Amino acid sequence: MDKKLTVELISVGTEILMGNIINTNAAFLAEECVKLGLSCYYQDVVGDNRQRLTATLKMAIDRSDIVILGGGLGPTQDDLTKEVAAECMGCELVMDEESKAAIAEYFEKIGKTPTDNNWKQAMMPVGCTVMPNHNGTAPGCIITKNDKHVILLPGPPEELKLMFKESVEPYLRSIMPGIIYSKTVKICGIGESKAETMIRDLIDAQTNPTIATYAKTGEVHIRVSALAEDEQSAKKLTKPIVKELKERFDNSIYTTEEDVTLEQSVVDLIIGNELTVGTVESCTGGLLAARLINVPGVSDAFKQGFITYSNKAKRKLVGVKKSTLEKYGAVSKQTAMEMAAGLASVAKCDIAVATTGIAGPDGGTAEKPVGLVYIACSVCGRVTVKEHHFSGDRQKIRNNTVTAALNLMRQSLLEYFSEKTFGKK
Amino acid sequence: MDKKLTVELISVGTEILMGNIINTNAAFLAEECVKLGLSCYYQDVVGDNRQRLTATLKMAIDRSDIVILGGGLGPTQDDLTKEVAAECMGCELVMDEESKAAIAEYFEKIGKTPTDNNWKQAMMPVGCTVMPNHNGTAPGCIITKNDKHVILLPGPPEELKLMFKESVEPYLRSIMPGIIYSKTVKICGIGESKAETMIRDLIDAQTNPTIATYAKTGEVHIRVSALAEDEQSAKKLTKPIVKELKERFDNSIYTTEEDVTLEQSVVDLIIGNELTVGTVESCTGGLLAARLINVPGVSDAFKQGFITYSNKAKRKLVGVKKSTLEKYGAVSKQTAMEMAAGLASVAKCDIAVATTGIAGPDGGTAEKPVGLVYIACSVCGRVTVKEHHFSGDRQKIRNNTVTAALNLMRQSLLEYFSEKTFGKK
Repeated sequence: MDKKLTVELISVGTEILMGNIINTNAAFLAEECVKLGLSCYYQDVVGDNRQRLTATLKMAIDRSDIVILGGGLGPTQDDLTKEVAAECMGCELVMDEESKAAIAEYFEKIGKTPTDNNWKQAMMPVGCTVMPNHNGTAPGCIITKNDKHVILLPGPPEELKLMFKESVEPYLRSIMPGIIYSKTVKICGIGESKAETMIRDLIDAQTNPTIATYAKTGEVHIRVSALAEDEQSAKKLTKPIVKELKERFDNSIYTTEEDVTLEQSVVDLIIGNELTVGTVESCTGGLLAARLINVPGVSDAFKQGFITYSNKAKRKLVGVKKSTLEKYGAVSKQTAMEMAAGLASVAKCDIAVATTGIAGPDGGTAEKPVGLVYIACSVCGRVTVKEHHFSGDRQKIRNNTVTAALNLMRQSLLEYFSEKTFGKK
Repeated sequence: MDKKLTVELISVGTEILMGNIINTNAAFLAEECVKLGLSCYYQDVVGDNRQRLTATLKMAIDRSDIVILGGGLGPTQDDLTKEVAAECMGCELVMDEESKAAIAEYFEKIGKTPTDNNWKQAMMPVGCTVMPNHNGTAPGCIITKNDKHVILLPGPPEELKLMFKESVEPYLRSIMPGIIYSKTVKICGIGESKAETMIRDLIDAQTNPTIATYAKTGEVHIRVSALAEDEQSAKKLTKPIVKELKERFDNSIYTTEEDVTLEQSVVDLIIGNELTVGTVESCTGGLLAARLINVPGVSDAFKQGFITYSNKAKRKLVGVKKSTLEKYGAVSKQTAMEMAAGLASVAKCDIAVATTGIAGPDGGTAEKPVGLVYIACSVCGRVTVKEHHFSGDRQKIRNNTVTAALNLMRQSLLEYFSEKTFGKK
């Protein structure tokens, strides 16, 4: 096995330098590259400035095998990544007819007329591999010379991510000296510190496969990656570790599949058992339904969603009792349960999930502080309710609530199925 | 006025290089530094490796006036930022008695005993300014020599932020040659290319103030920044440019306030006029309500939200006619209008907004392709409807739909107000 290839990430853009946006692209690319078995020693951020971009790129090409640039492929004069990359790799830019046609088609589709600027995006370095952009207008490209690989991606995250998955990942796999195989064990309902403590011994003992934990909103992903000469050998190396993780985390694991999200795993349970679902949301205000509905194919199962931000809406739409609201308040175990039960009856859905909480920044009291959230889930008539105390800002509290609601749905469904099976015996 | 001072940010840590965590520290520091009038041309990420950290820091000191390092001040052997910085600036490390006492006090407070490693955190470069850590154990420091300033901060965000605010910001202010003032003009409904074309002449002529455009989902932000000896003079410099931008973009501008989002501007219009709002969403599945509800204080105005993903829900909840669905389909101008009108009547809200479209990946036809979206908005009984053709994946189509819906709400409200005022005359 040869030494590991190194990758360097250069983010091009004044918005990152000025702190207008957080550099999520670099985190995404780093994680993906590590997954593929590359070593990342440097990340750089530089603005749309010819001299500084040239200096940074030259240094990166000198010290790393692969350089991935994100950003600066837009249609404006500021965007010079392609020009600079072509110059650093010693090649000219020429009009790429296929890219030109794709841009024309894109504009026709959105019913707008391209400006002269837009055609600049079809100019490509001679001899490069052009990567189509299926989420925007700027194509990307890969320039290879003297065992150095310079990869240009557009800056908008949804364009960069899709192009990486569609075009860069297969390319990187093709130049890797070995095969890396990774398996991600995705966990919900256990914090990162606790998860790490539970596998400290495995992390300390790691060599090949390697074990890394990644904290996501309300989730922890543990990635087990092995490098070997072929996929089968790499797979074999990961197996005992994955088995050990499954034993330790049991049904806190919602999937070990790379592409399966928490909402996908919940929707799979619902559709696979021919059940229907509905949502009634107060503090999450539609975010939970939006996460569920982001799963393609959910349309048959999703019956109705309500956003009942006011007490009046809670009463009118899902029949929460006035006395419950008066006695316990809108943010209470009782209200959450009545919301879920009421929704199940109004929408005639098998699974009814309800959220109510104080997302802040105002509205908290000593008794009911910001971050207090109740989530109720009714599965075929049986309601479970959970109390949570989340920290962070409004957005973070709401996102954590959505993740916790999905997890409660999953746990309630699993419990329901296991009892049903048990009852049948 | 001297030339602007430059700052370079170096984030030290393997977690960032591997993509385990997102580099929020860099975004925070960059924004704070820009606000103070510093120019940031480079950001770097490097691991806890003596050779690579030394090379990166030497280069940064060479090309920037101020270098801020975050991370690597911990008690373990991996943490070498202080040693490397002292070496690069040519000074020794000595025990700082004050820092030592503070560490002892901190451990007493949390009821734990410091290990030998912890005392390493009290070793400081000779002649530096020590910065106390009020959120943890690792003190920071500022090393100044030959007009170069090297600033060391701890990595945990809550420690880094507090220390920056308490100690670094006052220091930077004391060495700054002037004051910067910026104003952001936020535009919706015009693409980035078009917006840039409309102000090409201003961008080409810029010196002080500078003009920069930022593309957001469905929005463009134009930032005008001026540097002067005091805030008033800087403000005065930005004024004519901002005035010119206001004339050119007219009511496509939804705000010129830094902290105001599109949804905030819509909610302000609603609350300021004592109106109420409701949503009924098909393709956006709750995302529109979630954006509105993310604005603190919206609770009084937000009446009800419906997620009517199925035809049945569209009929049952907001009274879309069966014949309309049969004749024109769920994704049609007519259905969108009936959804909005029905919602206004059911929820008794002044503004009722409806979305219906094909978000993909499946469900598109030649006649109604993926990306076709109708948005209807009823303001006090008058319904406006817009047809859009969005590109991109499911998530992008939905996000663009939400932004377009907010913009339609804003435009419809402005139109309504202007006619109302006109009618009164």
